[in-house]
Amino acid sequence: MTAARAELAKGAKVIDYSGDFRFTTVEAYADYATRIGKEPTHASPDLLGRNAYGLSELHRDAIRKADIVGNPGCFACSCILGLAPAAHAQLVEPYSIICDCKTGVSGAGKKVNAAYHYPARYEQMNAYKLAGHQHVCEVERELSLQAGTDVKITFTAQVVPVCRGILSTLYGTLTRPSTEAELVALYRDFFKDSPFVRIYGSNASIGTLNVRGTNFCNLVVSVDTRVNRLRVVAHIDNLMKGQAGSALQNMNLMFGLPENAGLNRPGIYP
Amino acid sequence: MTAARAELAKGAKVIDYSGDFRFTTVEAYADYATRIGKEPTHASPDLLGRNAYGLSELHRDAIRKADIVGNPGCFACSCILGLAPAAHAQLVEPYSIICDCKTGVSGAGKKVNAAYHYPARYEQMNAYKLAGHQHVCEVERELSLQAGTDVKITFTAQVVPVCRGILSTLYGTLTRPSTEAELVALYRDFFKDSPFVRIYGSNASIGTLNVRGTNFCNLVVSVDTRVNRLRVVAHIDNLMKGQAGSALQNMNLMFGLPENAGLNRPGIYP
Amino acid sequence: MTAARAELAKGAKVIDYSGDFRFTTVEAYADYATRIGKEPTHASPDLLGRNAYGLSELHRDAIRKADIVGNPGCFACSCILGLAPAAHAQLVEPYSIICDCKTGVSGAGKKVNAAYHYPARYEQMNAYKLAGHQHVCEVERELSLQAGTDVKITFTAQVVPVCRGILSTLYGTLTRPSTEAELVALYRDFFKDSPFVRIYGSNASIGTLNVRGTNFCNLVVSVDTRVNRLRVVAHIDNLMKGQAGSALQNMNLMFGLPENAGLNRPGIYP
Amino acid sequence: MTAARAELAKGAKVIDYSGDFRFTTVEAYADYATRIGKEPTHASPDLLGRNAYGLSELHRDAIRKADIVGNPGCFACSCILGLAPAAHAQLVEPYSIICDCKTGVSGAGKKVNAAYHYPARYEQMNAYKLAGHQHVCEVERELSLQAGTDVKITFTAQVVPVCRGILSTLYGTLTRPSTEAELVALYRDFFKDSPFVRIYGSNASIGTLNVRGTNFCNLVVSVDTRVNRLRVVAHIDNLMKGQAGSALQNMNLMFGLPENAGLNRPGIYP
Repeated sequence: MTAARAELAKGAKVIDYSGDFRFTTVEAYADYATRIGKEPTHASPDLLGRNAYGLSELHRDAIRKADIVGNPGCFACSCILGLAPAAHAQLVEPYSIICDCKTGVSGAGKKVNAAYHYPARYEQMNAYKLAGHQHVCEVERELSLQAGTDVKITFTAQVVPVCRGILSTLYGTLTRPSTEAELVALYRDFFKDSPFVRIYGSNASIGTLNVRGTNFCNLVVSVDTRVNRLRVVAHIDNLMKGQAGSALQNMNLMFGLPENAGLNRPGIYP
Repeated sequence: MTAARAELAKGAKVIDYSGDFRFTTVEAYADYATRIGKEPTHASPDLLGRNAYGLSELHRDAIRKADIVGNPGCFACSCILGLAPAAHAQLVEPYSIICDCKTGVSGAGKKVNAAYHYPARYEQMNAYKLAGHQHVCEVERELSLQAGTDVKITFTAQVVPVCRGILSTLYGTLTRPSTEAELVALYRDFFKDSPFVRIYGSNASIGTLNVRGTNFCNLVVSVDTRVNRLRVVAHIDNLMKGQAGSALQNMNLMFGLPENAGLNRPGIYP
Repeated sequence: MTAARAELAKGAKVIDYSGDFRFTTVEAYADYATRIGKEPTHASPDLLGRNAYGLSELHRDAIRKADIVGNPGCFACSCILGLAPAAHAQLVEPYSIICDCKTGVSGAGKKVNAAYHYPARYEQMNAYKLAGHQHVCEVERELSLQAGTDVKITFTAQVVPVCRGILSTLYGTLTRPSTEAELVALYRDFFKDSPFVRIYGSNASIGTLNVRGTNFCNLVVSVDTRVNRLRVVAHIDNLMKGQAGSALQNMNLMFGLPENAGLNRPGIYP
Repeated sequence: MTAARAELAKGAKVIDYSGDFRFTTVEAYADYATRIGKEPTHASPDLLGRNAYGLSELHRDAIRKADIVGNPGCFACSCILGLAPAAHAQLVEPYSIICDCKTGVSGAGKKVNAAYHYPARYEQMNAYKLAGHQHVCEVERELSLQAGTDVKITFTAQVVPVCRGILSTLYGTLTRPSTEAELVALYRDFFKDSPFVRIYGSNASIGTLNVRGTNFCNLVVSVDTRVNRLRVVAHIDNLMKGQAGSALQNMNLMFGLPENAGLNRPGIYP
């Protein structure tokens, strides 16, 4: 919040990983900050509004013009990409959405923690922050923007013993009966200019290994027609599309470079 | 289907792992068999109706009297236990239920398979059978029985790289506003005579390691009050409560033994 | 070193996990302590000599009579058991011995550490303490006692991504040509009264999973006849025979109980 | 053995992964083939002698001139690189060498196998082929060539639950007292023109993750001065320097390309 001002003053452009610039109003920031136990007052309120939300697929033009970009949360990236086309087409009931998210351990960073000590983790699956995860804020804001109406989600964060990968299974009640084929077509059209999003139907065999070490987001779209429910399984590498890959994609836009520069064959930190 | 008859004729009691005796009508069996690509005609239709469904917590008396018991599917066990109290109290909308299930690899058995080869699995998460998993049948049957009305669920099966454990995250829209405390109390009362089911609120720190190698089912109950939605996170060991542990529990009932005989300190296959 | 005195004064018997009572002279303790960066002066020198080394297979009688026992190091336990019969028979050149040891991560305890953070460990193998591991001291002391001459070993400690298990591959030049069959017979005879040591030839299919959660030490004995070299692959669970199991075995001896009381079907911490 | 002839006839150059062209005489091939249960007669004996052994660091000139190259075995690559400098300087007793090798599971290929089924492997360490691994042949041949005398090794193959990586701990009795510093200098000089071999002393913190996804071989050199024994810990990625990386390095030499073309920032199969 404070370092950004100094960098901007030097003429640098800023892409922030921290969450401090994912929101454009002091109220939205306060809601987010409260969830992670931080002081709710933003230290640089004058910079809010000047920042863009760094999900290139939805904010390409704003990112191109911005000099300060808030990189999305890793879970949020998978949920927003997975539901934006349906929200935009007003195909899902706005209060029916559930985001059931599973992440690898690298999502928690390099800081050691008893929950991520190898013997405590190798055979462990668990949900956490059931009372409310901070990524809910940006997912609801973005889906509401797409839908043009207030969207609320139920969000569950879970950790499983992989290093890299997020698998988010997203559900929503359809506002009108739709087939998988229609939805696949709708999604492909929505992302037709987005080289990092790939759409599949339910017969595809996709897992997080298919995106590991890449900036891709693979979306598997299906419909439970018996109960008229959309289900999208979103796959990203939390360290790539979920963080550093998105940052590089944003930087490419901010500097007028091809959006995929440096992202086609990225190296991999083991 | 055919071996059971011979065993029964010798006076033996039968607990079946295969799925052949989880249903009591030829129609229900045919629906299940079709989902797993088996011949839909049951080979011993006269035995159907004589069998009990082997989920002790819900069918204790029937199991005690039966000489043939169909042991539940592992996913099904976690979903039914996690939602039965709410269904019984008619607290969830019958078509709103979502079961998002994650299993360890031992759930697929000992047979080798390219998807479970160590190098293909150690960093892999994936959903499978998106078009319909066979455990849906018994979950819907049991929840409908509890609710007294037709229940339909959306079910997602997923595999993560652990050996033992199922974590099922279960969602349903509440028919009336309820607090977590009310639901925890309701669940504890429902299972008050069931020594293997333990109920927790959302502040508990529970994972699949807490039930590994045991016959327990740990249920973490919470409510997303903003959208009036129940969420239950169910934890079992798929090889214990999800299979052999339940079978032993059933055997105890069938032979008039204490329900937990042999189950308090089970050994563990590594 | 200091707590033990107080417990002994109360009439309690002491089994020490810490390494403080693995040696019976102040000089031997000082050598050990120096290797782990501790103060070389023993705080209770008068208790040294009264203590027994807690490897039941070699010191059964001394442990029975002792009121203070120093439980062996986990690596040391596997190396000493794997080489004691050959040393006792003076079958290995005393300066030719190599102990190549691999341990699971639980051997490092529950304290978090950057090297054992899940993302840093899940695909990592590494050697450590190449300049000298403290377990060398007790291995050399015990093998020298068996051989009746000074034994020196080269010892390599390595960590691999399992939770529980030690696999120690032990090498020594034979003093006279011997066959695998002769050595298997020699080892079986040496351990004929030791229920937790099991001897196999090189055609056996043995891994650490065979001893996981148990107090067994499985030894696979083979000979590279081309170069006249003994090779023993020792398998233990570092938390059982390598620590708590040995402690219980010692306690059984100290209290006149059957040596295997409580150890035939131990429970397992997941 | 037979396909190579057809390719050579077309004017193609051949790099063989199979082991069929690692040896230049029918006798050496027969010894190798027998160890893996293959027919000992080579099908194309006239091609033997025309082939080069594809370890670039030792056979750079021969590989440049050859049109058929036998790519080394993965274990062999780590053992030969780790001991060649000492053998070349006649610093190790020729019958004193021990190669204690640990590999990740990808070394066994993509073919499914009960031993590499995830639940059977995730907590398993085991030695295998104790009666004789086929890589012994090429290691002994290469070290004998370096030493100018007959070298025999004791070799142990072991598998641990990682996907990619080989850690080989190599031991040999020194023919004259030497310090770690002298040996580090000797090794660095030996490999001064080999960009993929990096030499470290015992104070370095090196593991297989440092070479994962790369063509590097990291060698940690130390001396147990008490018993005058060299110890080298060799680290490679079995799929890179241990197989495909070496093949590409060989291809570069065969086609007059820079030796490291395509190898500085390789992509990684997850």
